[in-house]
Amino acid sequence: MSSNSNPIKIGIVGVGKIVRDQHLPALAKDENYRLAAAASRHGKVDGVPNFPTIEAMLDAVPELHAISLCMPPQFRYDAARTAIEAKKHVFLEKPPGATVSEVEDLKALAAENSVSLFASWHSRYAPAVEAARTFLGSTRIRSAAINWKEDVRRWHPNQEWIWQPGGFGVFDPGINALSIATYILPAMFISSAVLDFPENRAAPVAAQVTFRTSSGLPVTMDLDWLQTGPQSWDILADTDKGAMVLSGGGSKLIVDGHVVHDEPEAEYPMLYKRFAEIVRAGISDVDLAPLQHVADAFMLGKRNVVAAFFD
Amino acid sequence: MSSNSNPIKIGIVGVGKIVRDQHLPALAKDENYRLAAAASRHGKVDGVPNFPTIEAMLDAVPELHAISLCMPPQFRYDAARTAIEAKKHVFLEKPPGATVSEVEDLKALAAENSVSLFASWHSRYAPAVEAARTFLGSTRIRSAAINWKEDVRRWHPNQEWIWQPGGFGVFDPGINALSIATYILPAMFISSAVLDFPENRAAPVAAQVTFRTSSGLPVTMDLDWLQTGPQSWDILADTDKGAMVLSGGGSKLIVDGHVVHDEPEAEYPMLYKRFAEIVRAGISDVDLAPLQHVADAFMLGKRNVVAAFFD
Repeated sequence: MSSNSNPIKIGIVGVGKIVRDQHLPALAKDENYRLAAAASRHGKVDGVPNFPTIEAMLDAVPELHAISLCMPPQFRYDAARTAIEAKKHVFLEKPPGATVSEVEDLKALAAENSVSLFASWHSRYAPAVEAARTFLGSTRIRSAAINWKEDVRRWHPNQEWIWQPGGFGVFDPGINALSIATYILPAMFISSAVLDFPENRAAPVAAQVTFRTSSGLPVTMDLDWLQTGPQSWDILADTDKGAMVLSGGGSKLIVDGHVVHDEPEAEYPMLYKRFAEIVRAGISDVDLAPLQHVADAFMLGKRNVVAAFFD
Repeated sequence: MSSNSNPIKIGIVGVGKIVRDQHLPALAKDENYRLAAAASRHGKVDGVPNFPTIEAMLDAVPELHAISLCMPPQFRYDAARTAIEAKKHVFLEKPPGATVSEVEDLKALAAENSVSLFASWHSRYAPAVEAARTFLGSTRIRSAAINWKEDVRRWHPNQEWIWQPGGFGVFDPGINALSIATYILPAMFISSAVLDFPENRAAPVAAQVTFRTSSGLPVTMDLDWLQTGPQSWDILADTDKGAMVLSGGGSKLIVDGHVVHDEPEAEYPMLYKRFAEIVRAGISDVDLAPLQHVADAFMLGKRNVVAAFFD
């Protein structure tokens, strides 16, 4: 690859597990970017200046073009507003905010300030998602099912924020499923939902949701955060061309028993590629459908109280 | 008034208390309409043919131009889709649906079928609301507070649906407050919420919500469904021109101690006037901001369990 003569100078805010696991490796390999600073209350990034707050970072490194916001969603709005008002392009980790309305507000603010806003949905960039979308667009879907079952103790050990109001609970992984489903299936909406809240937690540990589409297509979603052993991140569809299974969180596509797409995932590299595209094109990319479904599920859903959860 | 030579033939679905108290008197006085049929599982309207279902009504009275849907929100989508696909204009009682996404779907469907869809927010048509909006637009607002406190046993006696998932609980009156607040205040979004659920009910009996606006204006909302004695349906604002009080659910405006607007309410006549306008203009009027805030409150809100509620 030739080196990019005009890299996007980027700062990263909220240095935790997802930043170390995904953002830093993706940025290190992408010639579109030069990581120039980081801000975090606790975490640090080697080799760049580190600051305790986004304000301190913006003051000390005014040449930044863009900011990635990776703190928990409850704290994202203030940082996003600060960054946008400082005329920086903004990459929002998922979910893009704690409410739909606040992200609408950020969209308007980004437009006013002529900067790009990106609501990143990493699972939508899983390797087999485009192939699944193309396949489903070529046939009639009879029904679809989303099964997203993982072990919260393994993937979010002792992450207290995820159990707080606004942390979404099992809808934190569930919104990944929704980001794929809303991209590969026709427009849908929730007809019923049951949410299981542990008696000692403010967010659900499991959910069963039924959707339908304009044409009456039934879609179910089963979310479970207590799945030990094999983990399930699958979207299934019964179609006129046979059974489709999009498994592994969008990485593997099986149609009528045949594996038609199976590639290693490269979600965060793809996300940063897309972010560079929209920054250079001067546009924003903010699809709120996945977050809207989560809000609708909380509004419409019946609440069950279930056994307490301890990490 | 001269009689209208081309009245909108309208059918009404879901004949309950709100229909008898508000819709029928408003329609009887409005020359834009001729009430031509009703459909309801239990209720009946005198002087017009009555049917058990919307499908039976549409079959038997094909000349209907428009349908008012007044059943509980959980059942509104199917009826709306049926009416729109039969090329009827649709008036949706508030709230317009059980989810934001399903109303988005109906908007698209109405556009496809070239009919008008009206998400009616009756409180927005309260007599002093326009004057409050004009006043607030003429000054700087320092803070605002919404206090909506009423006695559910008085206003919704034994209405079981209102306590079901999707019935919204105290957000059923609360969405009236929001329909006014979103009309008279700058765009706002929820920063925190606490919802009190009776231990034997699926919907909240009280809520404390804090909002803010792009400019940092603090707005609080206090909803309580157990208020006996005087009832409060007030929006207060502290402004550079003094204290504003919009009281009585939007009927009375007091600025700096002086009553500047106090008229009897005529909300439903105004709603039907507006519906006739949009039908004749060939447009829809569907503002989802009030419902979006309710969804956001449920998603972001902390849940408290409080004492059981019995009618």
